Amino acid sequence: MGMSSKRGYIQGKVIANCVGKRVFLNGGVARRPYSSVAEEYFPDEPSKPVVTSSQIPGPSSIKLTKELGRSFDSNASYFISDYFNSKGNYISDADGNKLLDVYAQIASIPLGYNNPALIETARSDVMVNALVNRPALACFPSIDYGKILSEGILAAAPKGMGHVWTALSGSCANETAFKAAFIYQNAKRRGSLDVSAEELASCMDNKPPGSSDMVILSFDKGFHGRLFGSLSATRSKPIHKLDMPAFPWPRAPFPQLKYPLKDHVKENHEEEERCLAELENIITKKVAPNKIAAIIVEPVQSEGGDNHASSFFFQSLRDITLKHEILLIVDEVQTGVGASGKFWAHEHWNLSTPPDMVTFSKKFQAAGFYFSDPKLQPKEPYRQFNTWCGDPSKALLARSIYQEITKNDLVTKTAEVGSYIYENLEAMFSKYEGHVQNLRGKNYGTFIAWDHSSPAERDQFISLCRSKGLNIGGCGSAAVRLRPCLVFGKKHADIMLSIIEDVLKTLRG
Amino acid sequence: MGMSSKRGYIQGKVIANCVGKRVFLNGGVARRPYSSVAEEYFPDEPSKPVVTSSQIPGPSSIKLTKELGRSFDSNASYFISDYFNSKGNYISDADGNKLLDVYAQIASIPLGYNNPALIETARSDVMVNALVNRPALACFPSIDYGKILSEGILAAAPKGMGHVWTALSGSCANETAFKAAFIYQNAKRRGSLDVSAEELASCMDNKPPGSSDMVILSFDKGFHGRLFGSLSATRSKPIHKLDMPAFPWPRAPFPQLKYPLKDHVKENHEEEERCLAELENIITKKVAPNKIAAIIVEPVQSEGGDNHASSFFFQSLRDITLKHEILLIVDEVQTGVGASGKFWAHEHWNLSTPPDMVTFSKKFQAAGFYFSDPKLQPKEPYRQFNTWCGDPSKALLARSIYQEITKNDLVTKTAEVGSYIYENLEAMFSKYEGHVQNLRGKNYGTFIAWDHSSPAERDQFISLCRSKGLNIGGCGSAAVRLRPCLVFGKKHADIMLSIIEDVLKTLRG
Repeated sequence: MGMSSKRGYIQGKVIANCVGKRVFLNGGVARRPYSSVAEEYFPDEPSKPVVTSSQIPGPSSIKLTKELGRSFDSNASYFISDYFNSKGNYISDADGNKLLDVYAQIASIPLGYNNPALIETARSDVMVNALVNRPALACFPSIDYGKILSEGILAAAPKGMGHVWTALSGSCANETAFKAAFIYQNAKRRGSLDVSAEELASCMDNKPPGSSDMVILSFDKGFHGRLFGSLSATRSKPIHKLDMPAFPWPRAPFPQLKYPLKDHVKENHEEEERCLAELENIITKKVAPNKIAAIIVEPVQSEGGDNHASSFFFQSLRDITLKHEILLIVDEVQTGVGASGKFWAHEHWNLSTPPDMVTFSKKFQAAGFYFSDPKLQPKEPYRQFNTWCGDPSKALLARSIYQEITKNDLVTKTAEVGSYIYENLEAMFSKYEGHVQNLRGKNYGTFIAWDHSSPAERDQFISLCRSKGLNIGGCGSAAVRLRPCLVFGKKHADIMLSIIEDVLKTLRG
Repeated sequence: MGMSSKRGYIQGKVIANCVGKRVFLNGGVARRPYSSVAEEYFPDEPSKPVVTSSQIPGPSSIKLTKELGRSFDSNASYFISDYFNSKGNYISDADGNKLLDVYAQIASIPLGYNNPALIETARSDVMVNALVNRPALACFPSIDYGKILSEGILAAAPKGMGHVWTALSGSCANETAFKAAFIYQNAKRRGSLDVSAEELASCMDNKPPGSSDMVILSFDKGFHGRLFGSLSATRSKPIHKLDMPAFPWPRAPFPQLKYPLKDHVKENHEEEERCLAELENIITKKVAPNKIAAIIVEPVQSEGGDNHASSFFFQSLRDITLKHEILLIVDEVQTGVGASGKFWAHEHWNLSTPPDMVTFSKKFQAAGFYFSDPKLQPKEPYRQFNTWCGDPSKALLARSIYQEITKNDLVTKTAEVGSYIYENLEAMFSKYEGHVQNLRGKNYGTFIAWDHSSPAERDQFISLCRSKGLNIGGCGSAAVRLRPCLVFGKKHADIMLSIIEDVLKTLRG
């Protein structure tokens, strides 16, 4: 099986087992070791994948996909899932297969399938109340919304960010952040002047000066959503953008680093310097700084191929935005909520000042954006506004997700299991050169990815993994990304590593 | 109190009471009379409003709004709601006031607060499953999603529309409908040609030909949402649009009818003819028909002021879209799901062919768009796509909402109570000329509105109603709109009418 690494990632040795607690040699009651969290949540989690159909999708999945397709677009369906029988890190399908899931609904399942803590939240009276009496939150906020936010979404806020606006999806989070940026920057541009009659009239005709000529700058290969504003900032693949009207917003190059990083220190630094210089050039020469309301960036460009940059790059980017009074929006829709080995991936950068806005969705179930400066909240009511302005039922889930992550120290544990996975993949991949390369995500939790030799081989790899009981996802043109949930432990990693090596052996032939 | 109308809206006379059923003279077991539905759902619904604080918002609401405002925008808050103690048509606030609610979370509460049927759904195992295992629906649909759709959202589909795409909000529903329109129309324009390399490259730079120069045409005073695409189609108020980038999309005039309709038949018809002629002119002279992907229209322009047009206007609009091969999107986000006296308001028009797409959200809790032609579903996967593609927890609520509406014949009952309200307001308003005018929404269920003499008096009217225990909402510049939920009966209407007249007396002085 090739999984011979003996390196454990749990410090300390178990000397006694209490009910639900383990006592460690290295001092008192320690945090529970990683696998035991999954065991406590899911005592009946499968011990390994079960594949009984001759292929995945199996016959029941194929039949149900076809039936669903008569009224709902099921063209992108991998298989039909049986969430009732899914458990922890294992997703069940309509044919009774049980796959170890390291894709986790495109990185959006936080604590495993049918997590008992979330089930308890879902069954609670406050949840029922939130579901059947969905409020128009800006007009008629519920008596408990402040508390739900402060104990959950706001308790999890990045350092220095005490304000939040809630939304419904990653696209919607980014677009409401864009709106905050446009309102703020146009007010700044207007200064002490009142809004003019010409502005009020022209905006109704979608024309300047009332309709803003300001832009959002994004990076090549970035992904920020698929509604019309967010899609104009998205730059990962033509299939997202073809045939859609788009705003004439600029893009800047994002560093394309070479791996392994330790062997390309100088040229990677030069590549980042090149991108920063070109960014400055775009800001000052091609667009003009006072036309750029905000720059949006992902800590790791996920959909675009798991493209990383260094803390130096991001600190420099922050410095550039401060110099030109451009707002910095960090899109943590995919990177946020623990998987990177920090609760928020941008914590890796140790920025001198917090970003202006940080957007979230996916693993948090709730969506929205944090901000630090209260001026990013419009002075007038109804400017940042819509019917629902979020969803308390998702905010309740976010609260439980945050509390479970904290209670069980899942960020640290994800960092540890990520290191374990990375080191094992690094050792493994040295045997399969020509097939896999550019392993990346070291010290970045389970946010790990690599490239295959071609898009076709990548697709074949994913398909073969699935047939062996591993549900794994791609990104970029030829990359595979790991996105397990936060209760993915060493025992799960070992099974995943074993399947990956089996498939690589098959591909090598 | 002035509410002297004796006209009942229940046909037939009760001759016997069975358990949960009433037998009528006019034939067998008839449907339950309207008020009894509310009584059965809510045996402990308040019998009248209770206002104990000296003003609304009261001291607790003011305190909690201020606290919430430290981290969340609470500038638009009317009062803080206590949804735990709200019941049926009555919303409770943080000060213990109980208001009869004819605004219903901006027209988005379908069956009253804490409806027991929805509570049962919220407590069900399928709901818990949907909440804790939220799927990426396009990639990993759940085994029961087809069934949930077919028994709920699709069972409620407008005639002739067998396909649906699910989304998260009204804005998101309209924008995904726009995307379907752009994909369809650009494919038609491209004909048998393959997508060119130039198209694929240029769209990544937000430039034509890959980024489409096609447009969505909307109507003056229309409201279609507040994300960047939907906001470009929204034309109701500058506060929605100021400072936002907008696509150069055209708008056409929407008829401004005069009331009462029966006294302005000729000039209203001429007004509609004028608007239709100008629409044709815009299509053929100002834009070019093959540049317009779709026209979007509300059956009643709600946020824009409850502006109606006749079936003639809408049938003519449909004919124009068919002639020029432009898609027709009917935005039923606010008008849909029963309140208009039809399940879908566009059923009032008796169109010769169904619209191409119908969008929904609000009262259905679930959002999305229906479509009739399967060609509006892109051939390729991942073109109409995002992480969640809807939310099964909302689809479950929609199923229950549809089933309760059907079981209790709430659409017919809403039509009946709407007529009752309309006739009483008509009689009442004749006494307050100079204060209220342009009563509209006859035969349109509870979708009733009127204008006040000024925006200031309208605001004062709303504020006085609230202080007397009636939560009512405005729209347009000086209009008031009724948007009660579907269990609003004659007894509730009588209380509302009484408060409205009290306030009008106060305004008249």
